[in-house]
Amino acid sequence: MSNVVANVYRGGVIESSHLGHVAVVDKNGSLLYSYGDPNRLTYARSSMKPIQTIPVVETGAADRFAFSEADLALCCASHSGEERHRSRVLAMLSRIGQSETVLQCGTHVPRDEASYRQLIKESRELTPVYSNCSGKHAGMVATAVHMGEDPHTYHEQDHPVQIRILEAVADVTGYPKDKIHIGIDGCGVPAHRLPLVNLAWAFARLATPSVFDNPVRREAVQRVTDAMVAAPEMVGGHNRYCTDLMQAFKGQIIGKAGAEAVYCIGDRQSGIGIAVKIEDGGARATYAVMNEVLYQLGIGTDGELEALHAYTNPDVKNMNGKSVGSIRTEFTLRRERKAAL
Amino acid sequence: MSNVVANVYRGGVIESSHLGHVAVVDKNGSLLYSYGDPNRLTYARSSMKPIQTIPVVETGAADRFAFSEADLALCCASHSGEERHRSRVLAMLSRIGQSETVLQCGTHVPRDEASYRQLIKESRELTPVYSNCSGKHAGMVATAVHMGEDPHTYHEQDHPVQIRILEAVADVTGYPKDKIHIGIDGCGVPAHRLPLVNLAWAFARLATPSVFDNPVRREAVQRVTDAMVAAPEMVGGHNRYCTDLMQAFKGQIIGKAGAEAVYCIGDRQSGIGIAVKIEDGGARATYAVMNEVLYQLGIGTDGELEALHAYTNPDVKNMNGKSVGSIRTEFTLRRERKAAL
Repeated sequence: MSNVVANVYRGGVIESSHLGHVAVVDKNGSLLYSYGDPNRLTYARSSMKPIQTIPVVETGAADRFAFSEADLALCCASHSGEERHRSRVLAMLSRIGQSETVLQCGTHVPRDEASYRQLIKESRELTPVYSNCSGKHAGMVATAVHMGEDPHTYHEQDHPVQIRILEAVADVTGYPKDKIHIGIDGCGVPAHRLPLVNLAWAFARLATPSVFDNPVRREAVQRVTDAMVAAPEMVGGHNRYCTDLMQAFKGQIIGKAGAEAVYCIGDRQSGIGIAVKIEDGGARATYAVMNEVLYQLGIGTDGELEALHAYTNPDVKNMNGKSVGSIRTEFTLRRERKAAL
Repeated sequence: MSNVVANVYRGGVIESSHLGHVAVVDKNGSLLYSYGDPNRLTYARSSMKPIQTIPVVETGAADRFAFSEADLALCCASHSGEERHRSRVLAMLSRIGQSETVLQCGTHVPRDEASYRQLIKESRELTPVYSNCSGKHAGMVATAVHMGEDPHTYHEQDHPVQIRILEAVADVTGYPKDKIHIGIDGCGVPAHRLPLVNLAWAFARLATPSVFDNPVRREAVQRVTDAMVAAPEMVGGHNRYCTDLMQAFKGQIIGKAGAEAVYCIGDRQSGIGIAVKIEDGGARATYAVMNEVLYQLGIGTDGELEALHAYTNPDVKNMNGKSVGSIRTEFTLRRERKAAL
């Protein structure tokens, strides 16, 4: 097992181990550092949400429906289903002239336990707005309505909404459209599978909008990523890495998690993009690994990394809240031969 | 990655992979088949519960407090917190002369969602009886009370309750007491770390009580394992592998899961013991892997394995309940050179 990224300790010894892959690239797509297999074909899952939001801006839907920065950030979100997230999605849908029933994302128990308990106390059932993807779906509906397309089938692979998104994913990741393998995501929309290095490159480019020759795309990328760092509380929620990371770095970094242990970061200062995939899909190691990558790359001041301390080698606690172990990252990035930071 | 046991597919291609280890031994401890590292040092976690229950019988506590087969099965359980589990634990505590506050297991949201929703509707808080380990803890309290020991510190490593358990673990697993590394389990009691092959041997011996020379131990092992197969609904709950496995095999097999993706089986017919550990601790692959081991070993009729079909290469579903992939086991057990079934 040559590419262990993190071990889970209990009582001072290893209980379980996670393999992983890391790709670090510059804005030109040159691989600077790696670990494991930087070309691993990886479903980007929700880490594609910033790209999936680009057409919401480019089509004019965002302007037509007066989407604020917080609204656009919510389109990029895997949110916790807190009241502030749900009420904003409902307000967006109202301006689009649609109700919650148009959302095709299904639903699930939200991360925000208080919201779930409130729902049960009121004898109400979970609805699609509780889905962590409801903001993204509201953005897709907005685009379909604005373009005069069927707003009820926007999740299908051959719907113009998804065709526009696939084109944007291919452009931003620099990976040919016909090589992107499509699966179905947990929320029912197409999921895109690409080499990890292209996910990293996508985030390097998202962090550096000037690389886009097309002014429409350049402006859309700028607006979406500005929205994420302006309203990071919409991208995740309380005690969520995406939110805490972007708050700690005060506009320098955009970051987005994906299911099955994917995480992508774009550093607007250096133009570097980073993508992480834990081989087994276990999310618990993801944020600790990303913190360690930032540390090894020298991205972030002591203060910025300190603000993310809770995610660095986190404790494993028992049901009484006592620390009985920890998750420790144990890897060193390989510097690629041709690379120079 | 030489020891992949299962791949998680989405859209027909691999999204994530799980490594794993398998040990298959006979009642004499001879390794018959293996995969990965059969000697992997492994925290047994809750798969030790049948052994942790042995002293409840041997001390006389089970007789003193009139523990039924269902009560003893509940001592061996990682239950779902269903009403039938909670009310039985409370009844056991009542006969012991203790209240729920004596339990040191902490608490967590139970697997049984209906029980959790009922609790919230009644504006009540989670209590220790909801912990999946509350039956085991009730058994430990029973032993302490019966022996005249402090019933409030039974979870501590140097308490006589835990010293008796360690002795039983060493005896049944055939692994020296002083080589068993001790951590703290999620429920606060000692967790035992041993080679996987010794976990398998333990279950071979649990399935074959006649191997124990000491008649007291022999009778206690018989009684505990009879209880598990007589009341498998107490060991897990609705749609739980432990319960469904033991019901399907109608007394032939004892099986118990442990946290961080451990599973152990003892086959009372062949005297074979099996232990599985998924390297990354991800539970989702565990039952599919164990089903595949049973299939490769030829344990179980078509009907018995058909009853466990839901756990064989299970679907990955999206939030609308649509199948978007599957978890597929992809390994072949190695037959050990000296072994013969």
